[in-house]
Amino acid sequence: MTAALLDGERLDDLQNGYKIIQDPGRFCFGIDAVLLSWFAKVRQGEKALDLGCGNGIIPILLKAHTQGAHYTGLEIQEESAELARRSVAYNHLEDTISIVTGDIKEAATIFGAASFDVVTSNPPYMIHAHGLQNANAAKTIARHEMLCTLEDVVGQAAKMLKSKGRFYMVHRPFRLAEIMGTMMKYHLEPKRMQLVHPYLDKEPNLVLIEGVLRGNSRIKVEPPLIIYEKPGVYTRQTMEIYESGTCSF
Amino acid sequence: MTAALLDGERLDDLQNGYKIIQDPGRFCFGIDAVLLSWFAKVRQGEKALDLGCGNGIIPILLKAHTQGAHYTGLEIQEESAELARRSVAYNHLEDTISIVTGDIKEAATIFGAASFDVVTSNPPYMIHAHGLQNANAAKTIARHEMLCTLEDVVGQAAKMLKSKGRFYMVHRPFRLAEIMGTMMKYHLEPKRMQLVHPYLDKEPNLVLIEGVLRGNSRIKVEPPLIIYEKPGVYTRQTMEIYESGTCSF
Repeated sequence: MTAALLDGERLDDLQNGYKIIQDPGRFCFGIDAVLLSWFAKVRQGEKALDLGCGNGIIPILLKAHTQGAHYTGLEIQEESAELARRSVAYNHLEDTISIVTGDIKEAATIFGAASFDVVTSNPPYMIHAHGLQNANAAKTIARHEMLCTLEDVVGQAAKMLKSKGRFYMVHRPFRLAEIMGTMMKYHLEPKRMQLVHPYLDKEPNLVLIEGVLRGNSRIKVEPPLIIYEKPGVYTRQTMEIYESGTCSF
Repeated sequence: MTAALLDGERLDDLQNGYKIIQDPGRFCFGIDAVLLSWFAKVRQGEKALDLGCGNGIIPILLKAHTQGAHYTGLEIQEESAELARRSVAYNHLEDTISIVTGDIKEAATIFGAASFDVVTSNPPYMIHAHGLQNANAAKTIARHEMLCTLEDVVGQAAKMLKSKGRFYMVHRPFRLAEIMGTMMKYHLEPKRMQLVHPYLDKEPNLVLIEGVLRGNSRIKVEPPLIIYEKPGVYTRQTMEIYESGTCSF
């Protein structure tokens, strides 16, 4: 099958049996999405929702390496959602992955409360207008809290989850205290966390966090995930994620 | 000078110019206290308070490697406080270190609110009666929240600090979410954190955290602190702490 690519788009092979359409003019997935998909656990028969799915990378990666029954991606930007739908169609995954155009803040209205076992999100990291903004609106919306805040994402995730449902998020460590405080505010008890460091002797630049709706107060902090041994050389840990079937990156 | 040692006590050389009297029948300091003293910053002329000082190890270590004007230790167990006072006297530090017998929960009454620049604490890690309790009352009080809870320590630290004063604590990572939530509740904004792992591929068993009273919401997560290269062999990081003059351990 030939992918219906639009001008400027490219078809990337995920090396896990699936391909994804990406538009470098919009927002291409990064290691964040791959690590979140590896960190998240979707069990056999479970239903998963990805809040702010962009080009659909997380539902597709989750489908590739977990046994969930169904994966839904919610995306506010119609062009991104449409691109995600074409990737789903290209991979013949229409029965397993649904891409819905809509606002995270209205997720409970769109899907009904307590309707998912798992919610994932790779939300915008930057506080509203802080930091450098990209002139490209699509990229700015993906990176900055223009259309939804951390609290919107966490609050809606809590609404969408069944009791004891699991929330998985990737974010920046500089917001860790705020992340934990917001999760606890919405009864998404932080249960597992892993910090991702580019090198062993560097500060982490990503944090992976799992919350359980109305879980008890006890968090498991994983060993650090170190990406590079030296410039251009992945650590054994990174290679194992690469080889686990999550994705090639 | 000969130390006035009681039965069963021993005099340990801290290799930083000072010695400490310890009683193995009570509670001897561990790597936790050394790492907290290394992590904590006391600037020239500042006043520091240690909540639950035990045998006085933290005030003595802070005196050894910082330029603070005065260090106070508060300890509820009279026998521990008395032992700490003898160590202070042995090192001729009576002008710089005060050991006060009293309850953490009454710290603000004892010292007056907003009277310190820095508060440190190596509090009991275990939730009330959870986990194995030691038949020895002194050790049980030092390890379990029998006489004060995490919230007591954090709440009193916030009361004792001047505006923008700094709180440094060592604790167990499994309580990290609760620690952050409690700190934020008392406006001790988490500003810096370091996880301590026995080995690179092991979960952390300690967390060092710094909070600033009414600080803004942004935390710096440090590179992981890895203690051992292999059994019995410290990492270069650990050796550097060892050599920094904090303490020999």
